[in-house]
Amino acid sequence: MFQHETQLRVRYAETDQMGFVYYGQYATYFEVARVEALRSLGCTYRALEDSGVLMPVTQFQIGYKKPALYDELLKIVTQIKQLPGVRIRFDYATYNPEGTLLNEAFTELVFLDATSRRVRKAPETLIQSLQPFFQDGI
Amino acid sequence: MFQHETQLRVRYAETDQMGFVYYGQYATYFEVARVEALRSLGCTYRALEDSGVLMPVTQFQIGYKKPALYDELLKIVTQIKQLPGVRIRFDYATYNPEGTLLNEAFTELVFLDATSRRVRKAPETLIQSLQPFFQDGI
Amino acid sequence: MFQHETQLRVRYAETDQMGFVYYGQYATYFEVARVEALRSLGCTYRALEDSGVLMPVTQFQIGYKKPALYDELLKIVTQIKQLPGVRIRFDYATYNPEGTLLNEAFTELVFLDATSRRVRKAPETLIQSLQPFFQDGI
Amino acid sequence: MFQHETQLRVRYAETDQMGFVYYGQYATYFEVARVEALRSLGCTYRALEDSGVLMPVTQFQIGYKKPALYDELLKIVTQIKQLPGVRIRFDYATYNPEGTLLNEAFTELVFLDATSRRVRKAPETLIQSLQPFFQDGI
Repeated sequence: MFQHETQLRVRYAETDQMGFVYYGQYATYFEVARVEALRSLGCTYRALEDSGVLMPVTQFQIGYKKPALYDELLKIVTQIKQLPGVRIRFDYATYNPEGTLLNEAFTELVFLDATSRRVRKAPETLIQSLQPFFQDGI
Repeated sequence: MFQHETQLRVRYAETDQMGFVYYGQYATYFEVARVEALRSLGCTYRALEDSGVLMPVTQFQIGYKKPALYDELLKIVTQIKQLPGVRIRFDYATYNPEGTLLNEAFTELVFLDATSRRVRKAPETLIQSLQPFFQDGI
Repeated sequence: MFQHETQLRVRYAETDQMGFVYYGQYATYFEVARVEALRSLGCTYRALEDSGVLMPVTQFQIGYKKPALYDELLKIVTQIKQLPGVRIRFDYATYNPEGTLLNEAFTELVFLDATSRRVRKAPETLIQSLQPFFQDGI
Repeated sequence: MFQHETQLRVRYAETDQMGFVYYGQYATYFEVARVEALRSLGCTYRALEDSGVLMPVTQFQIGYKKPALYDELLKIVTQIKQLPGVRIRFDYATYNPEGTLLNEAFTELVFLDATSRRVRKAPETLIQSLQPFFQDGI
Protein backbone atom coordinates (compact mmCIF):
# COMPACT_ATOMS: atom_id res chain seq x y z
CA MET A 1 0.00 0.00 0.00
CA PHE A 2 1.12 3.52 -0.77
CA GLN A 3 0.23 6.37 1.59
CA HIS A 4 0.80 10.11 1.43
CA GLU A 5 -0.19 13.13 3.51
CA THR A 6 -1.05 16.59 2.19
CA GLN A 7 -1.98 19.74 4.05
CA LEU A 8 -4.12 22.53 2.72
CA ARG A 9 -5.72 25.58 4.22
CA VAL A 10 -9.44 26.35 3.84
CA ARG A 11 -10.09 29.50 1.79
CA TYR A 12 -12.94 31.92 2.49
CA ALA A 13 -14.22 31.30 -1.04
CA GLU A 14 -14.68 27.65 -0.10
CA THR A 15 -17.02 28.29 2.84
CA ASP A 16 -20.77 28.65 2.52
CA GLN A 17 -23.31 30.57 4.56
CA MET A 18 -23.68 27.65 6.98
CA GLY A 19 -20.13 28.55 8.02
CA PHE A 20 -18.84 25.20 6.72
CA VAL A 21 -16.68 24.21 3.77
CA TYR A 22 -19.15 23.59 0.93
CA TYR A 23 -19.74 19.87 0.45
CA GLY A 24 -18.72 20.01 -3.22
CA GLN A 25 -15.37 21.58 -2.41
CA TYR A 26 -13.79 18.34 -1.26
CA ALA A 27 -13.56 17.06 -4.84
CA THR A 28 -11.00 19.81 -5.43
CA TYR A 29 -9.21 19.08 -2.14
CA PHE A 30 -8.88 15.43 -3.16
CA GLU A 31 -7.55 16.49 -6.56
CA VAL A 32 -4.80 18.38 -4.72
CA ALA A 33 -4.21 15.37 -2.47
CA ARG A 34 -3.79 12.84 -5.27
CA VAL A 35 -1.70 15.19 -7.43
CA GLU A 36 0.67 15.74 -4.49
CA ALA A 37 0.69 12.00 -3.79
CA LEU A 38 1.74 11.37 -7.40
CA ARG A 39 4.32 14.17 -7.23
CA SER A 40 5.90 12.53 -4.17
CA LEU A 41 6.36 9.47 -6.40
CA GLY A 42 8.19 11.59 -8.97
CA CYS A 43 5.22 11.63 -11.30
CA THR A 44 3.40 14.91 -12.01
CA TYR A 45 -0.09 14.84 -13.46
CA ARG A 46 0.97 17.67 -15.74
CA ALA A 47 3.76 15.56 -17.21
CA LEU A 48 1.30 12.67 -17.63
CA GLU A 49 -1.01 14.94 -19.65
CA ASP A 50 1.91 16.29 -21.67
CA SER A 51 2.83 12.69 -22.53
CA GLY A 52 -0.69 12.10 -23.85
CA VAL A 53 -2.45 10.48 -20.88
CA LEU A 54 -5.71 11.83 -19.45
CA MET A 55 -7.19 10.66 -16.15
CA PRO A 56 -10.87 11.57 -15.86
CA VAL A 57 -12.65 10.53 -12.66
CA THR A 58 -15.17 7.71 -13.11
CA GLN A 59 -16.39 7.35 -9.52
CA PHE A 60 -16.45 9.56 -6.46
CA GLN A 61 -17.91 8.68 -3.06
CA ILE A 62 -17.70 10.63 0.17
CA GLY A 63 -19.18 10.26 3.64
CA TYR A 64 -19.24 13.45 5.72
CA LYS A 65 -18.92 13.23 9.50
CA LYS A 66 -18.00 16.78 10.55
CA PRO A 67 -17.54 20.04 8.64
CA ALA A 68 -14.24 21.76 7.98
CA LEU A 69 -14.11 25.42 8.95
CA TYR A 70 -12.59 28.57 7.50
CA ASP A 71 -8.79 28.90 7.77
CA GLU A 72 -8.31 25.40 9.17
CA LEU A 73 -5.16 23.66 8.02
CA LEU A 74 -6.58 20.32 6.93
CA LYS A 75 -4.63 17.10 6.64
CA ILE A 76 -5.62 14.69 3.90
CA VAL A 77 -4.28 11.15 4.02
CA THR A 78 -4.28 9.56 0.57
CA GLN A 79 -3.89 5.84 -0.02
CA ILE A 80 -3.41 3.68 -3.09
CA LYS A 81 -4.27 0.17 -1.98
CA GLN A 82 -3.84 -1.62 -5.30
CA LEU A 83 -1.50 -1.34 -8.28
CA PRO A 84 -3.36 0.42 -11.12
CA GLY A 85 -4.48 -1.39 -14.29
CA VAL A 86 -6.61 0.68 -16.67
CA ARG A 87 -8.04 2.36 -13.56
CA ILE A 88 -6.55 3.73 -10.35
CA ARG A 89 -8.31 4.22 -7.03
CA PHE A 90 -7.35 6.75 -4.38
CA ASP A 91 -8.76 6.59 -0.84
CA TYR A 92 -8.86 9.75 1.25
CA ALA A 93 -9.38 10.69 4.88
CA THR A 94 -9.61 14.36 5.90
CA TYR A 95 -8.62 15.55 9.40
CA ASN A 96 -8.93 18.97 11.01
CA PRO A 97 -6.09 20.49 13.12
CA GLU A 98 -7.47 18.80 16.27
CA GLY A 99 -7.02 15.45 14.53
CA THR A 100 -10.75 14.85 14.17
CA LEU A 101 -11.73 12.75 11.16
CA LEU A 102 -14.02 14.94 9.02
CA ASN A 103 -14.79 12.64 6.12
CA GLU A 104 -13.72 9.56 4.19
CA ALA A 105 -13.84 9.27 0.43
CA PHE A 106 -12.48 7.63 -2.66
CA THR A 107 -12.13 8.43 -6.33
CA GLU A 108 -11.59 6.04 -9.20
CA LEU A 109 -9.93 7.39 -12.34
CA VAL A 110 -9.46 5.79 -15.74
CA PHE A 111 -6.40 6.14 -17.97
CA LEU A 112 -7.29 7.56 -21.39
CA ASP A 113 -5.19 8.13 -24.46
CA ALA A 114 -5.46 11.90 -25.03
CA THR A 115 -5.67 11.59 -28.81
CA SER A 116 -7.99 8.63 -29.27
CA ARG A 117 -9.79 9.20 -25.92
CA ARG A 118 -9.67 5.39 -25.56
CA VAL A 119 -8.99 3.49 -22.35
CA ARG A 120 -5.37 2.43 -21.92
CA LYS A 121 -3.14 0.89 -19.26
CA ALA A 122 -1.46 2.95 -16.56
CA PRO A 123 1.86 4.42 -17.74
CA GLU A 124 4.82 2.10 -17.06
CA THR A 125 6.68 4.82 -15.10
CA LEU A 126 3.79 5.20 -12.67
CA ILE A 127 3.55 1.45 -12.11
CA GLN A 128 7.29 1.22 -11.54
CA SER A 129 7.29 4.00 -8.95
CA LEU A 130 4.40 2.31 -7.11
CA GLN A 131 5.76 -1.25 -7.27
CA PRO A 132 8.08 -0.97 -4.23
CA PHE A 133 5.02 -0.28 -2.03
CA PHE A 134 3.31 -3.49 -3.15
CA GLN A 135 6.35 -5.78 -2.96
CA ASP A 136 5.26 -8.68 -0.82
CA GLY A 137 1.59 -8.03 -1.14
CA ILE A 138 -0.73 -8.03 1.85
CA MET B 1 -41.98 8.50 -5.50
CA PHE B 2 -41.45 12.16 -6.28
CA GLN B 3 -39.65 13.21 -9.46
CA HIS B 4 -38.59 16.58 -10.82
CA GLU B 5 -36.60 17.83 -13.83
CA THR B 6 -34.25 20.82 -13.87
CA GLN B 7 -32.27 22.30 -16.71
CA LEU B 8 -29.04 24.21 -16.40
CA ARG B 9 -26.43 25.45 -18.80
CA VAL B 10 -22.72 24.67 -18.42
CA ARG B 11 -20.62 27.78 -17.70
CA TYR B 12 -17.11 28.31 -19.02
CA ALA B 13 -15.90 28.62 -15.42
CA GLU B 14 -17.10 25.07 -14.85
CA THR B 15 -14.98 23.47 -17.58
CA ASP B 16 -11.40 22.33 -17.09
CA GLN B 17 -8.49 22.03 -19.48
CA MET B 18 -9.59 18.54 -20.52
CA GLY B 19 -12.51 20.37 -22.16
CA PHE B 20 -14.98 18.67 -19.77
CA VAL B 21 -17.08 19.90 -16.87
CA TYR B 22 -14.84 19.47 -13.81
CA TYR B 23 -15.84 16.35 -11.86
CA GLY B 24 -16.37 18.31 -8.65
CA GLN B 25 -18.82 20.70 -10.30
CA TYR B 26 -21.72 18.25 -10.24
CA ALA B 27 -22.12 18.69 -6.48
CA THR B 28 -23.23 22.25 -7.23
CA TYR B 29 -25.45 21.12 -10.13
CA PHE B 30 -27.20 18.66 -7.81
CA GLU B 31 -27.64 21.41 -5.22
CA VAL B 32 -29.49 23.40 -7.88
CA ALA B 33 -31.49 20.31 -8.84
CA ARG B 34 -32.68 19.49 -5.31
CA VAL B 35 -33.39 23.13 -4.44
CA GLU B 36 -35.57 23.44 -7.55
CA ALA B 37 -37.21 20.11 -6.75
CA LEU B 38 -38.10 21.43 -3.29
CA ARG B 39 -39.26 24.75 -4.76
CA SER B 40 -41.66 22.89 -7.06
CA LEU B 41 -43.16 21.43 -3.87
CA GLY B 42 -43.70 24.94 -2.51
CA CYS B 43 -40.78 24.63 -0.13
CA THR B 44 -37.69 26.82 -0.60
CA TYR B 45 -34.46 25.87 1.08
CA ARG B 46 -34.00 29.52 1.97
CA ALA B 47 -37.27 29.53 3.90
CA LEU B 48 -36.23 26.28 5.62
CA GLU B 49 -33.03 27.95 6.80
CA ASP B 50 -34.89 31.07 7.87
CA SER B 51 -37.16 28.84 9.97
CA GLY B 52 -34.11 27.39 11.72
CA VAL B 53 -33.48 24.17 9.78
CA LEU B 54 -30.09 23.36 8.22
CA MET B 55 -29.54 20.51 5.78
CA PRO B 56 -25.87 19.58 5.50
CA VAL B 57 -24.98 16.74 3.14
CA THR B 58 -23.86 13.54 4.86
CA GLN B 59 -23.24 11.35 1.82
CA PHE B 60 -22.53 11.94 -1.85
CA GLN B 61 -21.89 9.29 -4.47
CA ILE B 62 -21.53 9.72 -8.22
CA GLY B 63 -20.65 7.47 -11.11
CA TYR B 64 -19.45 9.25 -14.25
CA LYS B 65 -20.18 7.75 -17.67
CA LYS B 66 -19.62 10.63 -20.09
CA PRO B 67 -18.49 14.22 -19.64
CA ALA B 68 -20.68 17.29 -20.01
CA LEU B 69 -19.36 19.98 -22.33
CA TYR B 70 -19.29 23.76 -22.36
CA ASP B 71 -22.60 25.52 -23.07
CA GLU B 72 -24.62 22.31 -23.05
CA LEU B 73 -28.10 22.64 -21.60
CA LEU B 74 -28.12 19.72 -19.17
CA LYS B 75 -31.21 18.01 -17.83
CA ILE B 76 -31.06 16.68 -14.28
CA VAL B 77 -33.78 14.29 -13.15
CA THR B 78 -34.13 14.32 -9.36
CA GLN B 79 -36.00 11.67 -7.41
CA ILE B 80 -37.07 11.29 -3.80
CA LYS B 81 -37.86 7.62 -3.38
CA GLN B 82 -38.71 7.63 0.33
CA LEU B 83 -40.44 10.00 2.75
CA PRO B 84 -37.76 11.76 4.83
CA GLY B 85 -37.21 11.04 8.52
CA VAL B 86 -34.21 12.75 10.09
CA ARG B 87 -32.51 12.32 6.71
CA ILE B 88 -33.57 12.83 3.11
CA ARG B 89 -32.07 11.20 0.05
CA PHE B 90 -32.11 12.66 -3.46
CA ASP B 91 -31.20 10.56 -6.50
CA TYR B 92 -29.98 12.30 -9.65
CA ALA B 93 -29.44 11.45 -13.30
CA THR B 94 -27.78 13.97 -15.64
CA TYR B 95 -28.49 14.00 -19.40
CA ASN B 96 -26.92 16.06 -22.18
CA PRO B 97 -29.04 17.68 -24.95
CA GLU B 98 -28.78 14.48 -27.06
CA GLY B 99 -30.43 12.61 -24.21
CA THR B 100 -27.29 10.67 -23.30
CA LEU B 101 -27.02 9.71 -19.64
CA LEU B 102 -23.84 11.38 -18.33
CA ASN B 103 -23.85 10.29 -14.71
CA GLU B 104 -25.94 8.97 -11.84
CA ALA B 105 -25.61 10.13 -8.27
CA PHE B 106 -27.26 10.55 -4.91
CA THR B 107 -26.91 12.79 -1.89
CA GLU B 108 -28.14 12.16 1.61
CA LEU B 109 -28.80 15.19 3.82
CA VAL B 110 -29.58 15.39 7.51
CA PHE B 111 -31.99 17.83 9.14
CA LEU B 112 -30.29 19.95 11.81
CA ASP B 113 -31.67 22.50 14.22
CA ALA B 114 -29.78 25.68 13.30
CA THR B 115 -29.38 26.82 16.91
CA SER B 116 -28.48 23.59 18.68
CA ARG B 117 -26.94 21.99 15.55
CA ARG B 118 -28.68 18.79 16.68
CA VAL B 119 -30.37 16.26 14.42
CA ARG B 120 -34.13 16.74 14.12
CA LYS B 121 -37.03 15.39 12.08
CA ALA B 122 -37.92 16.74 8.65
CA PRO B 123 -40.20 19.80 8.85
CA GLU B 124 -43.90 18.90 8.86
CA THR B 125 -44.61 21.15 5.85
CA LEU B 126 -42.05 19.29 3.74
CA ILE B 127 -43.48 15.90 4.70
CA GLN B 128 -47.00 17.06 3.94
CA SER B 129 -46.06 18.33 0.50
CA LEU B 130 -44.33 15.02 -0.27
CA GLN B 131 -47.05 12.75 1.13
CA PRO B 132 -49.30 12.78 -1.98
CA PHE B 133 -46.46 11.19 -3.97
CA PHE B 134 -46.18 8.29 -1.54
CA GLN B 135 -49.91 7.65 -1.12
CA ASP B 136 -50.28 3.96 -1.58
CA GLY B 137 -46.62 3.50 -0.92
CA ILE B 138 -44.24 1.01 -2.41
CA MET C 1 -25.58 50.87 -27.88
CA PHE C 2 -26.61 47.27 -27.36
CA GLN C 3 -28.28 46.20 -24.10
CA HIS C 4 -29.38 42.82 -22.78
CA GLU C 5 -30.83 41.52 -19.52
CA THR C 6 -30.07 38.14 -17.94
CA GLN C 7 -31.44 36.59 -14.80
CA LEU C 8 -29.68 34.05 -12.63
CA ARG C 9 -30.31 32.57 -9.24
CA VAL C 10 -27.67 32.55 -6.48
CA ARG C 11 -26.50 29.04 -5.58
CA TYR C 12 -25.59 27.96 -2.04
CA ALA C 13 -22.11 27.07 -3.31
CA GLU C 14 -21.65 30.71 -4.26
CA THR C 15 -22.24 32.12 -0.77
CA ASP C 16 -19.55 32.49 1.86
CA GLN C 17 -19.68 32.43 5.63
CA MET C 18 -20.45 36.14 5.75
CA GLY C 19 -23.80 35.11 4.25
CA PHE C 20 -23.04 37.01 1.04
CA VAL C 21 -22.22 35.93 -2.50
CA TYR C 22 -18.41 35.63 -2.56
CA TYR C 23 -16.86 38.67 -4.22
CA GLY C 24 -15.03 36.55 -6.78
CA GLN C 25 -18.22 34.87 -7.94
CA TYR C 26 -19.39 37.82 -10.03
CA ALA C 27 -16.75 37.11 -12.68
CA THR C 28 -18.70 33.93 -13.45
CA TYR C 29 -22.05 35.74 -13.31
CA PHE C 30 -20.77 38.26 -15.86
CA GLU C 31 -19.52 35.42 -18.06
CA VAL C 32 -23.10 34.11 -18.09
CA ALA C 33 -24.40 37.61 -18.77
CA ARG C 34 -22.16 38.29 -21.78
CA VAL C 35 -22.60 34.81 -23.23
CA GLU C 36 -26.39 35.23 -23.07
CA ALA C 37 -26.07 38.74 -24.53
CA LEU C 38 -24.13 37.28 -27.48
CA ARG C 39 -26.62 34.40 -27.82
CA SER C 40 -29.47 36.92 -28.10
CA LEU C 41 -27.55 38.33 -31.10
CA GLY C 42 -27.47 34.88 -32.71
CA CYS C 43 -23.84 34.38 -31.82
CA THR C 44 -22.83 31.68 -29.34
CA TYR C 45 -19.43 31.81 -27.71
CA ARG C 46 -19.17 28.07 -28.26
CA ALA C 47 -19.58 28.54 -32.02
CA LEU C 48 -16.97 31.32 -31.92
CA GLU C 49 -14.50 28.93 -30.28
CA ASP C 50 -15.37 26.16 -32.72
CA SER C 51 -14.61 28.58 -35.56
CA GLY C 52 -11.16 29.22 -34.08
CA VAL C 53 -11.68 32.43 -32.09
CA LEU C 54 -10.75 32.69 -28.40
CA MET C 55 -11.79 35.62 -26.19
CA PRO C 56 -9.68 35.81 -23.03
CA VAL C 57 -10.47 38.63 -20.61
CA THR C 58 -7.82 41.37 -20.45
CA GLN C 59 -9.42 43.68 -17.89
CA PHE C 60 -12.01 43.32 -15.15
CA GLN C 61 -13.19 46.04 -12.79
CA ILE C 62 -16.01 45.90 -10.28
CA GLY C 63 -17.34 48.22 -7.60
CA TYR C 64 -19.46 46.53 -4.91
CA LYS C 65 -22.27 48.49 -3.26
CA LYS C 66 -24.42 45.80 -1.62
CA PRO C 67 -24.10 42.03 -1.37
CA ALA C 68 -26.27 39.51 -3.18
CA LEU C 69 -27.86 36.86 -0.98
CA TYR C 70 -28.58 33.15 -1.29
CA ASP C 71 -31.43 32.16 -3.62
CA GLU C 72 -31.96 35.70 -4.92
CA LEU C 73 -32.92 35.92 -8.57
CA LEU C 74 -30.44 38.53 -9.77
CA LYS C 75 -30.86 40.67 -12.85
CA ILE C 76 -27.73 41.59 -14.78
CA VAL C 77 -27.96 44.35 -17.37
CA THR C 78 -25.18 44.02 -19.96
CA GLN C 79 -24.23 46.79 -22.34
CA ILE C 80 -21.93 47.01 -25.35
CA LYS C 81 -21.34 50.71 -25.87
CA GLN C 82 -18.92 50.51 -28.79
CA LEU C 83 -18.49 48.32 -31.86
CA PRO C 84 -15.64 45.87 -31.18
CA GLY C 85 -12.27 46.11 -32.95
CA VAL C 86 -9.61 43.68 -31.71
CA ARG C 87 -11.18 44.10 -28.26
CA ILE C 88 -14.73 44.16 -26.95
CA ARG C 89 -15.96 45.74 -23.74
CA PHE C 90 -19.02 44.67 -21.78
CA ASP C 91 -20.48 46.83 -19.01
CA TYR C 92 -22.59 45.19 -16.30
CA ALA C 93 -24.98 46.28 -13.57
CA THR C 94 -26.34 43.73 -11.10
CA TYR C 95 -29.71 44.19 -9.37
CA ASN C 96 -31.39 42.16 -6.65
CA PRO C 97 -35.12 41.26 -6.78
CA GLU C 98 -36.02 44.54 -4.98
CA GLY C 99 -34.37 46.41 -7.84
CA THR C 100 -31.43 47.59 -5.72
CA LEU C 101 -28.21 48.11 -7.64
CA LEU C 102 -25.65 45.72 -6.11
CA ASN C 103 -22.59 46.44 -8.21
CA GLU C 104 -21.28 47.87 -11.47
CA ALA C 105 -18.51 46.31 -13.50
CA PHE C 106 -16.92 45.90 -16.88
CA THR C 107 -14.78 43.35 -18.67
CA GLU C 108 -12.62 43.87 -21.71
CA LEU C 109 -11.85 40.85 -23.87
CA VAL C 110 -9.45 40.44 -26.76
CA PHE C 111 -10.05 38.37 -29.88
CA LEU C 112 -7.38 35.71 -30.39
CA ASP C 113 -6.78 33.28 -33.20
CA ALA C 114 -7.04 29.88 -31.48
CA THR C 115 -4.19 28.34 -33.48
CA SER C 116 -1.62 31.14 -33.53
CA ARG C 117 -2.86 32.68 -30.24
CA ARG C 118 -2.35 36.06 -31.97
CA VAL C 119 -4.64 39.08 -31.67
CA ARG C 120 -7.17 39.37 -34.50
CA LYS C 121 -10.21 41.47 -35.39
CA ALA C 122 -13.70 40.66 -34.14
CA PRO C 123 -15.47 38.11 -36.37
CA GLU C 124 -17.43 39.73 -39.20
CA THR C 125 -20.68 37.98 -38.15
CA LEU C 126 -20.48 39.48 -34.67
CA ILE C 127 -19.88 42.98 -36.03
CA GLN C 128 -22.78 42.60 -38.46
CA SER C 129 -25.18 41.51 -35.73
CA LEU C 130 -24.14 44.48 -33.56
CA GLN C 131 -24.18 47.10 -36.34
CA PRO C 132 -27.95 47.81 -36.20
CA PHE C 133 -27.54 48.98 -32.59
CA PHE C 134 -24.90 51.54 -33.56
CA GLN C 135 -26.60 52.88 -36.71
CA ASP C 136 -26.45 56.61 -36.23
CA GLY C 137 -23.97 55.94 -33.52
CA ILE C 138 -21.40 58.57 -32.57
CA MET D 1 4.92 50.34 2.65
CA PHE D 2 4.31 46.76 3.65
CA GLN D 3 5.08 43.93 1.23
CA HIS D 4 4.55 40.17 1.41
CA GLU D 5 5.03 37.23 -0.95
CA THR D 6 2.80 34.16 -1.17
CA GLN D 7 3.10 31.09 -3.32
CA LEU D 8 0.26 28.90 -4.47
CA ARG D 9 -0.09 26.10 -6.95
CA VAL D 10 -2.72 26.11 -9.72
CA ARG D 11 -5.33 23.37 -9.29
CA TYR D 12 -6.93 21.51 -12.20
CA ALA D 13 -10.34 22.72 -11.00
CA GLU D 14 -9.14 26.27 -11.59
CA THR D 15 -8.32 25.82 -15.27
CA ASP D 16 -10.83 26.24 -18.09
CA GLN D 17 -11.08 24.67 -21.51
CA MET D 18 -8.83 27.36 -22.99
CA GLY D 19 -6.10 25.68 -20.92
CA PHE D 20 -5.73 28.81 -18.77
CA VAL D 21 -6.59 29.64 -15.17
CA TYR D 22 -10.15 31.01 -15.33
CA TYR D 23 -10.13 34.82 -15.14
CA GLY D 24 -12.46 34.83 -12.11
CA GLN D 25 -10.17 32.55 -10.12
CA TYR D 26 -7.70 35.30 -9.25
CA ALA D 27 -10.14 36.85 -6.77
CA THR D 28 -9.65 33.71 -4.66
CA TYR D 29 -5.88 33.75 -5.19
CA PHE D 30 -5.74 37.35 -3.94
CA GLU D 31 -7.87 36.39 -0.94
CA VAL D 32 -5.19 33.82 -0.07
CA ALA D 33 -2.47 36.42 -0.69
CA ARG D 34 -3.95 39.09 1.61
CA VAL D 35 -4.88 36.58 4.33
CA GLU D 36 -1.30 35.29 4.36
CA ALA D 37 0.02 38.87 4.31
CA LEU D 38 -2.10 39.63 7.40
CA ARG D 39 -1.00 36.35 9.05
CA SER D 40 2.64 37.35 8.59
CA LEU D 41 1.75 40.47 10.61
CA GLY D 42 0.39 38.28 13.42
CA CYS D 43 -3.19 39.04 12.48
CA THR D 44 -5.44 36.28 11.16
CA TYR D 45 -8.61 37.18 9.31
CA ARG D 46 -10.36 34.43 11.23
CA ALA D 47 -9.47 36.09 14.54
CA LEU D 48 -10.68 39.43 13.14
CA GLU D 49 -14.05 37.87 12.33
CA ASP D 50 -14.20 36.17 15.71
CA SER D 51 -13.63 39.57 17.33
CA GLY D 52 -16.60 40.97 15.40
CA VAL D 53 -14.98 42.61 12.37
CA LEU D 54 -16.02 41.79 8.80
CA MET D 55 -14.06 42.92 5.75
CA PRO D 56 -16.15 42.73 2.58
CA VAL D 57 -14.48 43.79 -0.66
CA THR D 58 -15.75 47.09 -2.09
CA GLN D 59 -13.56 47.33 -5.19
CA PHE D 60 -11.61 44.89 -7.33
CA GLN D 61 -9.63 45.71 -10.45
CA ILE D 62 -7.35 43.45 -12.46
CA GLY D 63 -5.41 43.76 -15.69
CA TYR D 64 -4.44 40.45 -17.32
CA LYS D 65 -1.22 40.23 -19.33
CA LYS D 66 -0.54 36.49 -19.60
CA PRO D 67 -2.43 33.42 -18.40
CA ALA D 68 -1.37 31.14 -15.56
CA LEU D 69 -1.24 27.44 -16.42
CA TYR D 70 -2.11 24.21 -14.63
CA ASP D 71 0.25 23.11 -11.86
CA GLU D 72 2.32 26.30 -11.98
CA LEU D 73 3.61 27.50 -8.63
CA LEU D 74 2.57 31.15 -8.76
CA LYS D 75 4.12 33.93 -6.73
CA ILE D 76 1.84 36.74 -5.61
CA VAL D 77 3.43 39.91 -4.28
CA THR D 78 1.01 41.82 -2.03
CA GLN D 79 1.52 45.41 -0.99
CA ILE D 80 -0.21 47.72 1.47
CA LYS D 81 0.84 51.22 0.48
CA GLN D 82 -1.16 53.19 3.02
CA LEU D 83 -2.20 52.74 6.64
CA PRO D 84 -5.85 51.66 6.73
CA GLY D 85 -8.65 53.95 7.94
CA VAL D 86 -12.18 52.59 7.50
CA ARG D 87 -10.89 50.93 4.32
CA ILE D 88 -7.77 48.99 3.42
CA ARG D 89 -6.27 48.55 -0.03
CA PHE D 90 -4.12 45.63 -1.14
CA ASP D 91 -2.14 45.73 -4.39
CA TYR D 92 -1.17 42.46 -6.06
CA ALA D 93 1.21 41.29 -8.78
CA THR D 94 1.16 37.64 -9.94
CA TYR D 95 4.25 35.96 -11.40
CA ASN D 96 4.68 32.51 -12.96
CA PRO D 97 7.69 30.27 -12.16
CA GLU D 98 9.70 31.88 -15.00
CA GLY D 99 9.27 35.23 -13.25
CA THR D 100 6.91 36.60 -15.91
CA LEU D 101 4.38 39.14 -14.64
CA LEU D 102 0.93 37.65 -15.36
CA ASN D 103 -1.35 40.34 -13.98
CA GLU D 104 -1.64 43.32 -11.65
CA ALA D 105 -4.62 44.00 -9.44
CA PHE D 106 -5.93 45.62 -6.32
CA THR D 107 -8.78 45.12 -3.88
CA GLU D 108 -10.26 47.63 -1.48
CA LEU D 109 -12.02 46.28 1.60
CA VAL D 110 -14.12 48.07 4.20
CA PHE D 111 -14.14 47.32 7.92
CA LEU D 112 -17.64 46.45 9.16
CA ASP D 113 -18.94 45.79 12.64
CA ALA D 114 -20.29 42.23 12.38
CA THR D 115 -23.33 42.92 14.55
CA SER D 116 -24.47 46.32 13.29
CA ARG D 117 -23.00 45.79 9.79
CA ARG D 118 -21.91 49.44 10.03
CA VAL D 119 -18.59 50.85 8.79
CA ARG D 120 -15.94 51.15 11.50
CA LYS D 121 -12.24 51.95 11.79
CA ALA D 122 -9.52 49.34 11.27
CA PRO D 123 -8.79 47.36 14.47
CA GLU D 124 -6.10 48.98 16.61
CA THR D 125 -3.99 45.77 16.61
CA LEU D 126 -3.85 45.73 12.81
CA ILE D 127 -2.80 49.39 12.67
CA GLN D 128 -0.13 48.81 15.30
CA SER D 129 1.37 45.86 13.44
CA LEU D 130 1.46 47.91 10.21
CA GLN D 131 2.84 51.12 11.74
CA PRO D 132 6.53 50.08 11.69
CA PHE D 133 6.32 49.82 7.88
CA PHE D 134 5.08 53.40 7.54
CA GLN D 135 7.45 55.04 10.06
CA ASP D 136 8.94 57.93 8.17
CA GLY D 137 6.15 58.29 5.71
CA ILE D 138 6.29 58.32 1.92
